[in-house]
Amino acid sequence: VTTIAATDPRTGDSAATAAEETTAPEVARIAQAAADSAPQFERAGRQFRASLLRAIADELDDRRQLIVDVADRETAIGPTRLNGELTRTVYQARLFADVLDEGSYLEASIDHAADTPMGPGPDLRRLLVPIGPVAVFGASNFPLAFSVPGGDTVSALAAGNPVVVKAHSSHPGTSLCAFDAMLTAARRVGAPDGVLGIVFGQAAGSALVADPRIKAVGFTGSLGGGKALLDIIGGREEPIPFYGELSSLNPVVVTPGAAAARGAVIGKGIAESFTVSAGQLCTKPGLVFVPAGDAGDVLVAATAETVGHTDAPVLLNERIFASFGEISGRAASLGEMSVLARGSEPSGSGFAVTPLLLGAAATELTALATEECFGPMTIIARYRSNDELHAALHALPSALTGTIHAEEDEVQCVSELTAILRAKAGRVLYNGYPTGVLVSWAQTHGGPWPATNTLHSSVGTTAIRRFLRPVTWQNAPEFALPEELREAYDAIPRRIDGTLTVPDTA
Amino acid sequence: VTTIAATDPRTGDSAATAAEETTAPEVARIAQAAADSAPQFERAGRQFRASLLRAIADELDDRRQLIVDVADRETAIGPTRLNGELTRTVYQARLFADVLDEGSYLEASIDHAADTPMGPGPDLRRLLVPIGPVAVFGASNFPLAFSVPGGDTVSALAAGNPVVVKAHSSHPGTSLCAFDAMLTAARRVGAPDGVLGIVFGQAAGSALVADPRIKAVGFTGSLGGGKALLDIIGGREEPIPFYGELSSLNPVVVTPGAAAARGAVIGKGIAESFTVSAGQLCTKPGLVFVPAGDAGDVLVAATAETVGHTDAPVLLNERIFASFGEISGRAASLGEMSVLARGSEPSGSGFAVTPLLLGAAATELTALATEECFGPMTIIARYRSNDELHAALHALPSALTGTIHAEEDEVQCVSELTAILRAKAGRVLYNGYPTGVLVSWAQTHGGPWPATNTLHSSVGTTAIRRFLRPVTWQNAPEFALPEELREAYDAIPRRIDGTLTVPDTA
Repeated sequence: VTTIAATDPRTGDSAATAAEETTAPEVARIAQAAADSAPQFERAGRQFRASLLRAIADELDDRRQLIVDVADRETAIGPTRLNGELTRTVYQARLFADVLDEGSYLEASIDHAADTPMGPGPDLRRLLVPIGPVAVFGASNFPLAFSVPGGDTVSALAAGNPVVVKAHSSHPGTSLCAFDAMLTAARRVGAPDGVLGIVFGQAAGSALVADPRIKAVGFTGSLGGGKALLDIIGGREEPIPFYGELSSLNPVVVTPGAAAARGAVIGKGIAESFTVSAGQLCTKPGLVFVPAGDAGDVLVAATAETVGHTDAPVLLNERIFASFGEISGRAASLGEMSVLARGSEPSGSGFAVTPLLLGAAATELTALATEECFGPMTIIARYRSNDELHAALHALPSALTGTIHAEEDEVQCVSELTAILRAKAGRVLYNGYPTGVLVSWAQTHGGPWPATNTLHSSVGTTAIRRFLRPVTWQNAPEFALPEELREAYDAIPRRIDGTLTVPDTA
Repeated sequence: VTTIAATDPRTGDSAATAAEETTAPEVARIAQAAADSAPQFERAGRQFRASLLRAIADELDDRRQLIVDVADRETAIGPTRLNGELTRTVYQARLFADVLDEGSYLEASIDHAADTPMGPGPDLRRLLVPIGPVAVFGASNFPLAFSVPGGDTVSALAAGNPVVVKAHSSHPGTSLCAFDAMLTAARRVGAPDGVLGIVFGQAAGSALVADPRIKAVGFTGSLGGGKALLDIIGGREEPIPFYGELSSLNPVVVTPGAAAARGAVIGKGIAESFTVSAGQLCTKPGLVFVPAGDAGDVLVAATAETVGHTDAPVLLNERIFASFGEISGRAASLGEMSVLARGSEPSGSGFAVTPLLLGAAATELTALATEECFGPMTIIARYRSNDELHAALHALPSALTGTIHAEEDEVQCVSELTAILRAKAGRVLYNGYPTGVLVSWAQTHGGPWPATNTLHSSVGTTAIRRFLRPVTWQNAPEFALPEELREAYDAIPRRIDGTLTVPDTA
């Protein structure tokens, strides 16, 4: 048996937590158990699944101290952010329980039998149903909120699907601990065996994606990792949906007006945004467009000064540490790039790195400058005209977010920037920073490739749609219909003969 | 220049209609024009797009006689069904205009800034936006409703996307005629140039799917053709959504009760359903489960008798003609298969074929018997027990539809069959025939692979969702928001702080 052992990122030594790699026969057994549990789990209904999600939230909350301690040893993220992340994770599970109670997500529709221009039409009733067992790949940078008990898991469970998690190898102990909390919750509410599964190791993850019993994949990770999984899916007899959250540069634009009005404040904010969580957020601003000239200089000076006083943060694991050193080193040595500031040098032997602020002309951005670099580095690109700015933005890859800092009277300028950024991002934000993704009804965490595969959000309530498929019943007897499609049912919004009807909650 | 010339399927001779193959530089020019037109087309708004769809419907209707004449010469479908298909096509375009007016499809959501368990939350406003230029592949068997002016085209246009159609090579004249009607409509309402494009020839279709300016593909055709396009997409730098409607066996189950109560009527209905439109419907029942014993014998005898009196229909083109001969010939010669009935022998030299009814034991179905055979052939599989029936159903590939003929008191039996068929179909229907797919709000024309790629319907109003992606605006000034997300807008359903609100239409 091969062991997956965690490393303490603060020292580079063993973190004393580990899990066994899952063998191929065991992956097959887990996938089979998931498939076997699917019909019973679906039949248990929405209210049951809401109770499961709330029980999961409770169990996670009950083990808060234990989970945060283990996660901190394995990730060096620190107890403050880990506590916040656990709060978010618990809130997320409960929010999906609310989604189940509310019921719109089912897209229930009824067309009664009627005459149509094409002749007599039958009675048609449509609902979204679970897609089948889902494989979820945990992410390294959110060991809770985007990992074993994270958004992919709870949205897939809410949709009515068994979930098999592929644990991230950086935090096996956290994964086991969170999985145990979920399993306890599942047993407490009486969920069928097999609804929750977990596998460890890269080979097990590949086997899981190739397994014909798996019907969708949720993944948060690198572009390379995502492409490798897409290749596996391409080789399956049955292609399945792949929801990858992969790579994002998150450009930020500061207008001349904003730079003039509050350059120093924005400059400090940018420094904080690209170094928070050691720059290991998928929404980290990786490229900041600042106007040339005095106002922009003030902004850049504020960013540089803040970076200069920033401690060396500890990265999550050796791979990210090595990759950051390699990409940031190459970027810093480019002829067109200047080093504007460095943070503190790390002391000791772990995976700490020096925050790095680079600068370049907007007209001189190369492919390397527009590639995601995970960790505390960003590039400030100076532009001399709207034309330069627009040309540079048009040349960028798509992203999860696009940010505009502007003054109220810059209407024309903001309208143009909104159009450009909207065309290549899933979230456009104003006078703020892209880091921080609220879990809510109107959130989008997605965007055109390579950010994700564009059609869906992986954060917020609409993430559930990824794990559902439509079915229509035609001229069905009442007993054969799901409860929500029976004539007298009125507890959820339904579209009836084309008209959306909402339950009276008064 | 290579010419794509149509053949008259009734004679095998030239139909005197043709189009020129589109060259690679011309495909690139058309894709560029589509991309260039996209921002203006989106800005024109929902009402403009509704007017475009209604104008398209009007222009198609105005040329009804011309279109039906050309289509009949190229497809031999006959004026009655072609008139019906044009009615459906026109209705479909107008229904998507209604979808635009109604506005739910935008999934507009607003979360006002508020305190949350994770701290202060920003103002978030979410809407679905057009995905970008869409490539639509016309189908041979619906030269209007699933071709140039068909469901993929009008749903993609409704969503706000330019469309480039790859015309089916079997009906170039019909394609040109329908495209001309659409182009006239587009010019009449003042749509930007480039919103509608058309290409001819297989190489042009491949080039279109590979073109980086194309952002989604709609396809109705063979499993092999769909896989070839998926391979092209796999080779793109940016993977894009592929919506393929590919292959479906459409199993029909007759229960013992239904066979006893009305075997002869069902038997006749089955014969009509698999031979209507020459069996060239994606929802043709390709496999019918009938109980062993006397009641089932009566049913089968009625089917056989009806088939025996069915004329030899003319298939759409030489490829389908050859394929039908090959697959039906192989099936008929299998040792476990018996020939139950044949229809009339064709006379003359075109693509007419003999309808064919085969029989087998449900326990002896081979891979060949569970493969789609396009054309007037079906297989009756006799079962001796529920166990035999369930085992055979479980072994089938997924399909667009699953049909149950049963009596009212067979509750247990119908419940079990519903569960089995629902797990592998997009539409489950009762005491009817799968052929005939109403265009409506609650329709699903889709299903797990190889029927489609499972997540969406290609028929009905929800087909629009395939060509949209979500965007969230965070703390945006009112002027930068789409009209539908501004605070005071109240003309469409919106989710506000989690609560679905519907405009008061009283």
